Amino acid sequence: MIEGIGASSGIAMGKAFVIPTWEWDFPDKLIDVADLAYEFERLYDGIHHSKVEIEQIKQEFVSVLGEEQTQIFDAHLAILEDPIFMSEVQGIMQRQYKAAEVAVKEAIDKFVNMFDLLDDHYMKERALDIKDVGNRLLKHLLGALEETLPPKDQPYILVAKELIPSQMVHLDVNQTMGIVTMMGGKTSHVAIMARAMSVPYVLGLEGKLQTPIQNGDYLIIDGDEGIVYVNPEEEIIRQYEARRESWKAIQEQLQKLAHLPSQTEDGWQMNLAANISSVKELDLVIRNGASGVGLFRTEFLYMDRSTFPQEEEQFVVYREVAERLQGKPVVIRTLDIGGDKHLDYLALPEEENPSLGYRAIRVMLDRTDLFKTQLRAILRASHYGSVKIMYPMISSLEELHRANELLEEAKQELREAKVPFSEEVEVGIMIELPASVMISDLLAQEVDFFSIGTNDLVQYVLAVDRMNEQVAHLYDPYHPAVLRMLKMIVDNAKRFKTHVSVCGELAGDIRALPIWLSLGIKELSMSVQAILKVKNSLLQSKYSDTEGIWDELSKCMSSSAVIEVLGRYLETDLAEETKPHWPASGCC
Amino acid sequence: MIEGIGASSGIAMGKAFVIPTWEWDFPDKLIDVADLAYEFERLYDGIHHSKVEIEQIKQEFVSVLGEEQTQIFDAHLAILEDPIFMSEVQGIMQRQYKAAEVAVKEAIDKFVNMFDLLDDHYMKERALDIKDVGNRLLKHLLGALEETLPPKDQPYILVAKELIPSQMVHLDVNQTMGIVTMMGGKTSHVAIMARAMSVPYVLGLEGKLQTPIQNGDYLIIDGDEGIVYVNPEEEIIRQYEARRESWKAIQEQLQKLAHLPSQTEDGWQMNLAANISSVKELDLVIRNGASGVGLFRTEFLYMDRSTFPQEEEQFVVYREVAERLQGKPVVIRTLDIGGDKHLDYLALPEEENPSLGYRAIRVMLDRTDLFKTQLRAILRASHYGSVKIMYPMISSLEELHRANELLEEAKQELREAKVPFSEEVEVGIMIELPASVMISDLLAQEVDFFSIGTNDLVQYVLAVDRMNEQVAHLYDPYHPAVLRMLKMIVDNAKRFKTHVSVCGELAGDIRALPIWLSLGIKELSMSVQAILKVKNSLLQSKYSDTEGIWDELSKCMSSSAVIEVLGRYLETDLAEETKPHWPASGCC
Repeated sequence: MIEGIGASSGIAMGKAFVIPTWEWDFPDKLIDVADLAYEFERLYDGIHHSKVEIEQIKQEFVSVLGEEQTQIFDAHLAILEDPIFMSEVQGIMQRQYKAAEVAVKEAIDKFVNMFDLLDDHYMKERALDIKDVGNRLLKHLLGALEETLPPKDQPYILVAKELIPSQMVHLDVNQTMGIVTMMGGKTSHVAIMARAMSVPYVLGLEGKLQTPIQNGDYLIIDGDEGIVYVNPEEEIIRQYEARRESWKAIQEQLQKLAHLPSQTEDGWQMNLAANISSVKELDLVIRNGASGVGLFRTEFLYMDRSTFPQEEEQFVVYREVAERLQGKPVVIRTLDIGGDKHLDYLALPEEENPSLGYRAIRVMLDRTDLFKTQLRAILRASHYGSVKIMYPMISSLEELHRANELLEEAKQELREAKVPFSEEVEVGIMIELPASVMISDLLAQEVDFFSIGTNDLVQYVLAVDRMNEQVAHLYDPYHPAVLRMLKMIVDNAKRFKTHVSVCGELAGDIRALPIWLSLGIKELSMSVQAILKVKNSLLQSKYSDTEGIWDELSKCMSSSAVIEVLGRYLETDLAEETKPHWPASGCC
Repeated sequence: MIEGIGASSGIAMGKAFVIPTWEWDFPDKLIDVADLAYEFERLYDGIHHSKVEIEQIKQEFVSVLGEEQTQIFDAHLAILEDPIFMSEVQGIMQRQYKAAEVAVKEAIDKFVNMFDLLDDHYMKERALDIKDVGNRLLKHLLGALEETLPPKDQPYILVAKELIPSQMVHLDVNQTMGIVTMMGGKTSHVAIMARAMSVPYVLGLEGKLQTPIQNGDYLIIDGDEGIVYVNPEEEIIRQYEARRESWKAIQEQLQKLAHLPSQTEDGWQMNLAANISSVKELDLVIRNGASGVGLFRTEFLYMDRSTFPQEEEQFVVYREVAERLQGKPVVIRTLDIGGDKHLDYLALPEEENPSLGYRAIRVMLDRTDLFKTQLRAILRASHYGSVKIMYPMISSLEELHRANELLEEAKQELREAKVPFSEEVEVGIMIELPASVMISDLLAQEVDFFSIGTNDLVQYVLAVDRMNEQVAHLYDPYHPAVLRMLKMIVDNAKRFKTHVSVCGELAGDIRALPIWLSLGIKELSMSVQAILKVKNSLLQSKYSDTEGIWDELSKCMSSSAVIEVLGRYLETDLAEETKPHWPASGCC
């Protein structure tokens, strides 16, 4: 058993296919001065073919991963046009009379080493990109070398010293059960792609293996725990097989709950809605019997493209969601861009602390053109179903008032154009800043609903960026300070009869269910995958049992005490524990 | 009048000295192949002399600015050893038979343009560094060119398209009344140096001048407002002269208050202490009659050097502060590193959001060696005066308990070594995270005092990085959410008779004084410059007037309403308004 770093969750079991380490074996060939022109021609040909090939792969891959994930290929194209890289190659050829492939290899080695020496995570990962491009260019210059890709006949677990994005491109998702690399980082392009393709991935095994993994070794990789077993004993294989089987059995059992009423054993109704990012997820939303969509993250509509989506285009999407939900509500959150989510075509400033920066409603109140386009699209969809509007990152009444002014303008424009929309469309806000918690009594009087975004709230309350490994252990949704804020929000909302739901990750964590019951919350919104698990727990819970919980929780002096109390109230027959999963990018 | 960006505060009035734009006029000289060796020798000589010169300047400058600010010169030395830059220069010489200075100039132009094209603030500023180094190298290659420095006989306001750090080095602080540049950024090395030298600086005038500023033009620059006047009318000069005069008069008047009792007209005592970063500031602390030092930021002790300060060295500093305060208390805050404060010799990870990352107590609880060294030094100083210990960034009881365990270990080590210290040394914490506000009832039971760090608190409550220009307008210490948190802290502290002081910038803002009086706070700690201004206001206030303030404030729905209420209670005879000043790096 080797402990690495889990970079994409899930379990994979099967035979290893090992990609040979990047290495080219060719002589350090010198050329005649007279051949320089010919060598340059070869170099330019190679560059040209490499570019064409990268373009082709990119186009193929767009359909699988979307444009967002394929920007890496633009980076590769840029390297082939980089003046420093190219002048280095040409310099070696001209000064030392070396053949094109020799010059390319030397230039690659030089830059890769240089970037590797830098104490900079980002630059180290760019070194991989250079290797990748150089690799491709060399292939064209040398002609005959074969692609070092796995066989097409049987599923495998891919093993490599390090992977380069273009190798990922050639992977057949149905054949690649998992990935293991010695090097690499969680934020590398390869890791992002693995998560996007739902392939379990463990990295960071460098120096931890006594003997290298060989082709055909039997591996178990556990992307949640970051563990790899090489040729494990039968006993361990049986354990993992049993885990897989029980996982499947649980899924089947849970699926039967989909169309039961969503309530406690003693009849307390609790809506379980879904957080989604695209129309594609609606099938599962409906199949799992969600009460609706509690959070539709619209930023993904803006991301897979090179220009802002027009009103009509947005409208079509929102309308489809509204219609397919057949009267069940969908809460559409206005664009929450900035922070860790960027658009290529919207230049935002470089920020020292993007999470404390220019994002979400802060951007939209400046870019009223974008905001009103989106509001009109949402309003128009409200004619076709139960649509609600939600503003993210509201910190003050002024921001709320300004957003509502713009909403009123959008409505007026539609009225004048005689475009139908629901005049009664409900408007709510995310409660995700400590500021909005503290003034939730004031805000509650002016909105139809609150949606508590626990992810950002916890981040700001504790001043902990949960994406930062160095402090991730301090990211603690069960911190007493967080609980007290939840109580404050709910108390203030109740005073003014404002509806409250919870849409952060905590909503999908069954351990937290007793909190929601004791606070009297009637709606949770979570990832589609979590709904049935939470429902299972809900069906076994008794609302009447939860009365005393808050008294106990309010006396807790630490999160471990909180979790201990909650453990005593948690009702579930699932053997499986709830695991922390990779957060979808930034969500709420 | 031209509006730019204020980069270092203060007002300067006087004649302009304009530095010519960087430009070298020499022929594109080709050389004979036979002279290549000689040209290379010239190049290496030039590099050698440039390095020696940079080293010399660095040494001279260390005494003025401290090592922290002179790292720029290490960066310059590194450029002269950079393999890409050098291979570019050599390549031009070898391939195109150009003279050394021509090759250097072309290489500089190439890299400066490349860096400038990048959409990256940091890289753009590095382009300036390359220019600066290249400039120096060219000077050595060309020999005869004169330094383009201002005359030594009369004070001037320096004007330049852009300034490079080595030009700053040659400035005589007594002669340079102010600086104006067309380009540059607030975070550039030049801006940092200007602030360190207290020279008013306005930048960002590019494209705003109808005619360029000429040598001898009469300028007024206002670094607070970011305004420059070129040859202003007599009327404006008189206004600014009057402003300067009234400023002086006010300073003299305020100085008379230094040794009056610090209390309201009706006798409510309020301690006004100082925030300091070094022993040097103690003279002014004592001169201004501060009640003590409410915040001694120890990170500056760690910053001007290349290794961690030893226990003895720290002890000597803490002891000097304790002794010179003659029984008045000094609150020593343990190392608050990370976030925007870094040490060259302590590698911290690159972070996406450093303010939500690995900093302050989070680092020290991992690096218990550093923490205990500092604690022992502080404890030893406690034998020589009234010393208190304060932990920054506490977010939970667990962190506090762990810090206290280490403190107990440090005490035990001193006891065993029979080194004297005060067994009664008080221990407090910064309240600067929303989390610690929410559990301030729990924390109050376990510490001797709270010090409210409003700067970070506001930042986290509102999720606004105040150093980020894009959202700086949202950084609002008068936000009702902040006020409610202040009230919560004070109420909880009162319940458990825990002493509360305020040490963020809000403490030094006279507009906030009615808040502190109404909350019953008895200690404020602020920059030394602010003490007498606040005292002036305090002496004119009546505690009995403040009873109703909280009722009014608690009803405010916006910060403008808060400021309006406070305005009605503010007592001051100062004409001058309180201006926002450049924050000392990160403080509290």
